[in-house]
Order: sequence, then C-alpha cells, then structure tokens
Amino acid sequence: MGLEEHIRDIPDFPRPGIVFKDITPLFLDAGALREAIDALAGYARELEVDYVVSAEARGFVLGGAVAATAGAGFILARKPGKLPRETASVEYQLEYGVDALEVHSDAVRGGARVLVHDDLLATGGTAAALCGLVENAGGVVAGCAFVIELAFLNGRARLSPRDVRSLVVYEDE
Amino acid sequence: MGLEEHIRDIPDFPRPGIVFKDITPLFLDAGALREAIDALAGYARELEVDYVVSAEARGFVLGGAVAATAGAGFILARKPGKLPRETASVEYQLEYGVDALEVHSDAVRGGARVLVHDDLLATGGTAAALCGLVENAGGVVAGCAFVIELAFLNGRARLSPRDVRSLVVYEDE
Repeated sequence: MGLEEHIRDIPDFPRPGIVFKDITPLFLDAGALREAIDALAGYARELEVDYVVSAEARGFVLGGAVAATAGAGFILARKPGKLPRETASVEYQLEYGVDALEVHSDAVRGGARVLVHDDLLATGGTAAALCGLVENAGGVVAGCAFVIELAFLNGRARLSPRDVRSLVVYEDE
Repeated sequence: MGLEEHIRDIPDFPRPGIVFKDITPLFLDAGALREAIDALAGYARELEVDYVVSAEARGFVLGGAVAATAGAGFILARKPGKLPRETASVEYQLEYGVDALEVHSDAVRGGARVLVHDDLLATGGTAAALCGLVENAGGVVAGCAFVIELAFLNGRARLSPRDVRSLVVYEDE
C-alpha cells in the first residue's frame, strides 16, 4: 500500500471550501510511518545535513525521527514565547494576518547544513520562514523535505532555488 | 556524556520561581537524540506496544521516533479543534484553569497496547489525561515513558499502578 493510501481527504476543514489532507492515518500505521521516515532520512543523508528543523506541532512528529535516523540533530521552531532562552524570530504572512516562528539563537551555528522539514508543502509560507531563520543565522538550507506537496499552490517556486523533495505530490486540487 | 549533560536549567521560566528544564540541547545533539530514542524504544519493545501516544508539541519530537523505532504507530493528542475528524476529548486541571486534549475517535482500537510518552513528567496532569484518553477508548496503557522526571512533584504516584520509565530523574528541586 502506497503512502498516499494513508492520507485522507477531509472536506471543509478547517473552513468551508478547503479540502484538508489528513496525514494522521499515516502516522498511525507503523509500516507507513517507518517508510516515510526512512525516505526522508535517505534524502537527509544524501544532503549530508547536520540538523533537521521543523515548525510545531505536526512537523515535530517526523522531524525528530528523520534527524535521528540520518544521524543529525533536531532544531525546534516554535511559536513566540515557547522557547526558554534567547531566540531569533521571523514573521510570515498568513492568508489573514501575520504569524511568527522562533528558534534558539544558538541552535544554528554558522555553516551548518540544515534540512527544513514539514509534513505538508502548500503555499510554502511556513517553509520559507524556516529557511529564513536558518539563513539569517548563517546556516545553509541543504534542502526542504515534505511528505505531502500540493503542487497546484506553487510552494516549490517560492522555495526556489533550494532543493525540494516530497513523497506524495497532488498535482490538482 | 550522560543525557543529563544536555538538559539545561532555566531559572524563572515561564514564571518567577520556576526552574525550567530545557530539553532542546538534547534534541540538538545527534548522539543524545539517538540515545534517548533508543532507550525509550527499548522500553516500548519490552512492553510490546502497538502505539505510542504523545501530547503536542514537545512530546511529538521523540514520540514519532520512538514509535517508528519500536515498530509501533503514533497517535497525536492535540489541543481542541486541531484534529480534522471526530475526536474523543479529556479535560484536565492546570495550576490555574482547565485544559483539554483530543485524539481521533478511531485512533485507539479496543485492546490496543499503548505507550504514553512525554518529554517531562512533573505533576503528571498531562500524562494522566493521556492515560484517560487511551483507557476511555478501550485501549491498555502498557506504560508511561519520559525523558525527564521531577520526582519531587510525585507525578509517578498519580500514574500508579501504571508502569513508569524515566531516563533522567531529579530527586530534589
């Protein structure tokens, strides 16, 4: 069974007219969970990354596992106020309003090779913010890895020229 | 270097008088991250669990990795409104006020053996809530696994008679 068999369409979530891709059945299935981690960790190893960075909360589920499987460390990007020490912050635009993500200022050392991971690539706003956090701190975004890519939203173009790998790509809405 | 060398004391966070145990340096260190996952996954294998369940957000970092390493699936427990399908919910008491956690109603099948994981065992409120979610759905809490245990807060007694394993135990405040 392919990974896409474990992704469920949820109409009208979180708002009417949106079809949400629910990845939780993939996390629930031990074989699919292992397969997704191994595929993303293989990409991380190709890129010889030192760290994986993910945004809370769903990005943490595979992010920690991908890092450990690839022999890398894991950097948490969190909403403002959640990290206890000095942070670097980036704001990014949502459909309505602005959000922000933070990492500990000492988490990204200069020249470190970092894999940006999230479960889903949609418009690329969150991933671009993560790239900004890494690059502003002097790190190198070696690549961006997702389970699901909604290709019709053009997130990949927004992350260009950085390398992007996705396990399940939806071409059409 | 022991795991405890990667845990940092942060005085007066999130409030004056509280010493926060910052686990993010442990996640950042590839060797310590791997060691923590392998230790918790070894416990999960002893218990022959089918699933690992964790609460957002920090619990997800090791939860997904422990599940995959032990050959189990992963169940996300989230704050209300975050999961897209029908949920089972549990409320629990905080120092000031009430919080709630939800899992998808179909995530825990009857008789499933589940490991409850969080990064930190303090008073045990969150872990007890996770146990309640699993047991109300007909699952069996095979054990509870933490990286850090603040033994002086007696969370272990609150989880009794369930089995508890912690990697780093602080006996005194």
